[in-house]
Amino acid sequence: MNNFYYYTPTKVVFGKDTISKVGTMVKKQGSKKVLIHYGTGSVKRTGLLDRVKAALDAENIDYVELGGVVPNPRLSLVYKGIEFAKKENVDLILAVGGGSAIDSAKAIGYGVANEGDVWDFYDRKRTPKASLPVGVVLTIAATGSEMSDSSVITKDEGGIKRGCNNDLCRPVFAIMDPELTMTLPDYQTACGCTDIIMHTLERYFTSKGNMEITDSIAEGLIRTVMKNARILVKEPKNYDARAEVMWAGSLSHNGLTGCGNGGNDFATHGLEHEIGGMFDVAHGAGLAALWGSWARYVYKDCLPRFHRFAVMVMDIPDNSSEEEVALKGIEKLEDFFREINMPTNMSELGIHPTEEQLIELAHKCSIAAGGSKGAAKVLYEKDMLAIYKMAL
Amino acid sequence: MNNFYYYTPTKVVFGKDTISKVGTMVKKQGSKKVLIHYGTGSVKRTGLLDRVKAALDAENIDYVELGGVVPNPRLSLVYKGIEFAKKENVDLILAVGGGSAIDSAKAIGYGVANEGDVWDFYDRKRTPKASLPVGVVLTIAATGSEMSDSSVITKDEGGIKRGCNNDLCRPVFAIMDPELTMTLPDYQTACGCTDIIMHTLERYFTSKGNMEITDSIAEGLIRTVMKNARILVKEPKNYDARAEVMWAGSLSHNGLTGCGNGGNDFATHGLEHEIGGMFDVAHGAGLAALWGSWARYVYKDCLPRFHRFAVMVMDIPDNSSEEEVALKGIEKLEDFFREINMPTNMSELGIHPTEEQLIELAHKCSIAAGGSKGAAKVLYEKDMLAIYKMAL
Repeated sequence: MNNFYYYTPTKVVFGKDTISKVGTMVKKQGSKKVLIHYGTGSVKRTGLLDRVKAALDAENIDYVELGGVVPNPRLSLVYKGIEFAKKENVDLILAVGGGSAIDSAKAIGYGVANEGDVWDFYDRKRTPKASLPVGVVLTIAATGSEMSDSSVITKDEGGIKRGCNNDLCRPVFAIMDPELTMTLPDYQTACGCTDIIMHTLERYFTSKGNMEITDSIAEGLIRTVMKNARILVKEPKNYDARAEVMWAGSLSHNGLTGCGNGGNDFATHGLEHEIGGMFDVAHGAGLAALWGSWARYVYKDCLPRFHRFAVMVMDIPDNSSEEEVALKGIEKLEDFFREINMPTNMSELGIHPTEEQLIELAHKCSIAAGGSKGAAKVLYEKDMLAIYKMAL
Repeated sequence: MNNFYYYTPTKVVFGKDTISKVGTMVKKQGSKKVLIHYGTGSVKRTGLLDRVKAALDAENIDYVELGGVVPNPRLSLVYKGIEFAKKENVDLILAVGGGSAIDSAKAIGYGVANEGDVWDFYDRKRTPKASLPVGVVLTIAATGSEMSDSSVITKDEGGIKRGCNNDLCRPVFAIMDPELTMTLPDYQTACGCTDIIMHTLERYFTSKGNMEITDSIAEGLIRTVMKNARILVKEPKNYDARAEVMWAGSLSHNGLTGCGNGGNDFATHGLEHEIGGMFDVAHGAGLAALWGSWARYVYKDCLPRFHRFAVMVMDIPDNSSEEEVALKGIEKLEDFFREINMPTNMSELGIHPTEEQLIELAHKCSIAAGGSKGAAKVLYEKDMLAIYKMAL
């Protein structure tokens, strides 16, 4: 049992027809003019942007807009957003989209409220002292960014993908209507479910301690997501399944699933960030492609947790050695990834890094982590390289 | 699946030796002078008050103090606190204690920040528009008031116990050191565990809908509290068990265990408030004394939930009729209450209301609820009277 800090201030408005409340939420926040920040078109095509604007109009909230956020959101657009937000004197950034739009909005929020180059916060050179408030209309259940303290940005030159974690960027509100996620491509839905499961597993696999109540929440969450991800493969418009996954996404990454664990692992995320930066793959698919190799590389150093995971989450009968049961649990989660059409190695992901690229990936991953990363097992550059090679 | 709103802004600082952080937390809040509000002496005897003052001194935070809060905290002291806080110009109320000290602090916070009689908010005549921030150093795991939007105050004349629920009173921070709860009398520990279980059950038993992820959290939470309550009967100084129960107490009542359920029941709480007001019994024991009677009165109207509870929480084999399984679940929770030395009727609780008193209890309970109460089954005055009689 370890000490912990827990802080989740986001006001969540969850359910059908909640988009109309975005104006009220902005008004309650005391904001007068917002920058609506979104992706490359789907929020326009589906009419969502018009609904958001109508809700803002209804409360006499002024707004300007900036679209163009891409997956693995780019620093160049963040810079553009900062300049635009300053010029227009906006006092809240409203992300309409998934994790990319939210993360980009968070970066703009930092950039407006602090002096100097915003990349410094991602490059760990400085810590932000303030942020413009960020509000969210969520359209993808995946990254949990709608409640999290995390923002991940990719620097255009060199494809360097870096995260900045700070409570200042936790969104002030999040409008979460599961119906908005019904039109997602199946692949993106599965990527989202994978990311959600991984956010919990990154906290679950640690050798530093645990808390029973946190374990019970984490295990229930993963089981719920797996069950509903399977439903969504067949029934993408099942509202209840969409809602379960969407709420799981927020709870998975707002801190709840790590209370008392003494420190998160997040090595798989670190490894994925590098392939995401270099090859621009979908984040969830990248995680699925790497996880099994990571797990087989580290499980002996965190055996009691892998054993518990196998029994409590994956329903592996506890009738052979601890190690065998643990390995069966790993295999069964990989089977699940395949079942929802996720890759379990980089080849299935569609990327084939060369030896030089593997070395570069491991080197960049190690540098991003300040030399080492992991709570299940501490990984150094050589370990990272070994895992990348296992995942080919 | 129902829409829901979720908001838990409290900064939780959890674990050993966290008391020293109270000064920093007040400072981060931007407060300059606090009113330390506590009970009738134990925080002085144990030296906790001195530790809190030292932590405030270390950050140059000014303070005044007001003790004397009793269980079922009284309106008269709230009035005194409001006057004192205004006179001393404090800008934060720091509750040091359990639910009573926190609820009293919340009422003072309302009273300072709003015009007029603070009782109006409890009597449902007006809604508070503001509150002074409330911070918490928690010494009892029970009411969940350290994260909840709830405050319950008893009017001295007539023993009228009423609650006011409003997000404005959610504490801005809560310092939670499980070691502080180790010296509690066994009876109070058991009362706390009962209250925590009940806060989840009041949300779990509803006929209005459910969400799988919420159910899994609720079921895991109750199982965790039951397991650790049993441990604490034998090992009151078991740190991990204290910590599990303490964190469960906050999660049980901050809203998490009711997301998507379409509305909470809280009839047992309503029934208990009246006997608490009339006989000044311990809240948790009062709940245990009434729950079984409530459950037997309503279970047929909420059979799928009582059946699920029996199977998923109480481990009743699902091999007889739905009704039989449900009844076995109710019996087994009552067995658990006995195991931790809680009463399962009013006689065991040590109170013997007369026929006239029973009628008065039901009448007051009905009035407090605005005529009816309940989500598992809607109860009117005659139902309330029937349950009180079953619970003799």
